[in-house]
Amino acid sequence: MENGSKLSSNSKKWGFKKDTKQMTKASMTTIRGVITMLQENLDKDDVRSVVPLSHGDPSAFPCFRTTPVAQDAIAEAVRSAKFNGYSPTVGIPPARIAVAEYLSKDLPEKLSPDDIYLTVGCTQAIEIILTVLARPNANILLPRPGFPYYETRAAFSHLEVRHYDLCPETGWEVNLDEVEALADENTVAVVVINPGNPCGNVYTYNHLKKVAETARKLGILVIADEVYDHLVFGSNPFVPMGVFSSITPIVTLGSISKRWLVPGWRLGWLVTNDPNGILKEQGIVDCIKGFLNISSDPATFIQGALPQILGDTKEDFFLETINSLKMNADFIYSRLQEIPCIVCPSKPEGSMFVMVNLNLSLLDDIKDDMDFCVKLAQEESVMILPGIAVGLKNWLRITFAIEPSAIKEGLERVKAFCDRHAKKQ
Amino acid sequence: MENGSKLSSNSKKWGFKKDTKQMTKASMTTIRGVITMLQENLDKDDVRSVVPLSHGDPSAFPCFRTTPVAQDAIAEAVRSAKFNGYSPTVGIPPARIAVAEYLSKDLPEKLSPDDIYLTVGCTQAIEIILTVLARPNANILLPRPGFPYYETRAAFSHLEVRHYDLCPETGWEVNLDEVEALADENTVAVVVINPGNPCGNVYTYNHLKKVAETARKLGILVIADEVYDHLVFGSNPFVPMGVFSSITPIVTLGSISKRWLVPGWRLGWLVTNDPNGILKEQGIVDCIKGFLNISSDPATFIQGALPQILGDTKEDFFLETINSLKMNADFIYSRLQEIPCIVCPSKPEGSMFVMVNLNLSLLDDIKDDMDFCVKLAQEESVMILPGIAVGLKNWLRITFAIEPSAIKEGLERVKAFCDRHAKKQ
Repeated sequence: MENGSKLSSNSKKWGFKKDTKQMTKASMTTIRGVITMLQENLDKDDVRSVVPLSHGDPSAFPCFRTTPVAQDAIAEAVRSAKFNGYSPTVGIPPARIAVAEYLSKDLPEKLSPDDIYLTVGCTQAIEIILTVLARPNANILLPRPGFPYYETRAAFSHLEVRHYDLCPETGWEVNLDEVEALADENTVAVVVINPGNPCGNVYTYNHLKKVAETARKLGILVIADEVYDHLVFGSNPFVPMGVFSSITPIVTLGSISKRWLVPGWRLGWLVTNDPNGILKEQGIVDCIKGFLNISSDPATFIQGALPQILGDTKEDFFLETINSLKMNADFIYSRLQEIPCIVCPSKPEGSMFVMVNLNLSLLDDIKDDMDFCVKLAQEESVMILPGIAVGLKNWLRITFAIEPSAIKEGLERVKAFCDRHAKKQ
Repeated sequence: MENGSKLSSNSKKWGFKKDTKQMTKASMTTIRGVITMLQENLDKDDVRSVVPLSHGDPSAFPCFRTTPVAQDAIAEAVRSAKFNGYSPTVGIPPARIAVAEYLSKDLPEKLSPDDIYLTVGCTQAIEIILTVLARPNANILLPRPGFPYYETRAAFSHLEVRHYDLCPETGWEVNLDEVEALADENTVAVVVINPGNPCGNVYTYNHLKKVAETARKLGILVIADEVYDHLVFGSNPFVPMGVFSSITPIVTLGSISKRWLVPGWRLGWLVTNDPNGILKEQGIVDCIKGFLNISSDPATFIQGALPQILGDTKEDFFLETINSLKMNADFIYSRLQEIPCIVCPSKPEGSMFVMVNLNLSLLDDIKDDMDFCVKLAQEESVMILPGIAVGLKNWLRITFAIEPSAIKEGLERVKAFCDRHAKKQ
């Protein structure tokens, strides 16, 4: 009897059954996904503390604690009860004014508050600009190595990705010939991350100008990811890409996450640097506003605190962070020299990361970077991000934005691990 | 000479040109879009204050101010510096535990913290479940009138919308025969909003049970939008749909926005009420987690404050809100009786809204609900949402979650407007 038989819960046909492959595949390519996997490989019986050299989140460490100015600004904003309601989708006016003033300090032409769109961290700013630029057959130029959320979001919006290479031999500069060769009439934008994640490099004024000129020639947008803005401690100063907005339109993405050491506060911005009104004329501004109308907003009282956070933070706080990062960068660079199978092409001068090459020929039983990182987690309770997670196989991304004592401990364990797995001569 | 001529900025061909229609069309169907349009129609020379009977945001009014418990919880969380870092994409464990305990108080079976996913307000919870359920040819059943963000997000995910009608004659109950007739093998879910927005109704235990049984029969998910949970002041108590999760799987959407009067804090949740593990088995849970991995998160310190907000808020605060809403509902209902061209089918018993019918035959020069609302804004500085914005032409959605004096003033102006535009007998 096929009819009339009572269906059990398990055999019942449900209309909402999903093939999970696509959605779960997208999420496995994220840094978070790889870090979760490494965490699952940690040896629970190891009594030593875990050394997290894989994360880009220094806020857990006392030496990277945010300023009381920012904390007080939030507490005051929430207690004022002025910011309990919905905000306009573009952000509340005082916050937009504050970001425009803050960023304009480093620009030849003042930004208007109308150029500023507040976002749920820099991550949402990436989501917005890629969603807006997507259209059938369009492609975007992304750096390799890079920040894989761009690849994930491009795939989600069916935007074709073309990678240009960052080469360690040229200080991780953009290979402009390659950018020109990759671009065609369907290319919408080139993404430039400066200061560099994952490479820890900082581009010169002249190199950034050439990027702008190349984009202008190709008729494409420059997306300037400046989430690590001002976190520089080498010879090159931080130059915002917006300086070159008269050459070609620039969309700058940023946030308070890194400079204020509060990635969990989820406050970022998308900025149109567009003195010639090209983005407006080409429909991009209307599409940004349209997508914001159907997107999540950052909490209103965090926006309300922004004028005080951006305006009242003392230079001392920034200098302390820079000093800590610089000391850590120097230290990690010198210690890495003592590990033969790890080659560090240059001392990091910005952001919180360094990219190092793994010389597998010196190791006995390590297949690749992923194998290295999984075994390192298992045997030494040290977490390092395999380069494959940021697009560069057999490299490693190491963060130095943690306590100096933890870097020391971590690198000692890495050295012990490499010695143990070294090929016998 | 076509070649070699220098292109001006305006005539240059840019690769990122966008047709703005699709993106801007989606955003124009939102309540925010209509309210913005009404605001633009206000007479700037009218010295009287604007009466906002169109918004669902009571937080601007002193009588609907949130509890100090919630404000203190945020201030303490941010000052603790424990919640400055990134949160897990599903939410931090203490916040998930707190929501599970809070919601379980009204359920026969306890929720697990693993059933709770924290979101950027209830809006993002809607985005997540609709994105997850979308697949080629799938359709979803939405109430008419309803909350248009569902339509907007369904369109964005290419999920076909089929409307079932809420009828004023039956207290805005779900027409279950119509639901059955609309559903087919590609139907994934039915959305039920209770307490009702825009209708201000509250469903009985028996009606909700029948909804669950119908969904079970059809093999579809029930999406229970309970963003107005506990805001009831009539004869029906609030019954969470999750009570019927043994009949069919329920996904509940909620937030602290309405009950705590803080829509701008952007903290909500998506909850799987699924004791039989059907959502897990059918891949929905994995897809929710996968999409969360690439979505924005609520600020970590707001999550950190959640245990205190949910656990320590005194019953007095809730009762005060309910009393204010009930008084306002009674008042608005009685005053509406005095306006002949406005017919109020029933006194609102929940949420913050009432739906009223416009008798156009009694009006002289008013074409429809939109025309009524635009002219009302122009002539009387009173903002009311046209029913068309929530799917019901020639009705109006009026909020009563504002100061009583503003309701009084607003309805006097509406009466004057209707008298002035009344058809001469």
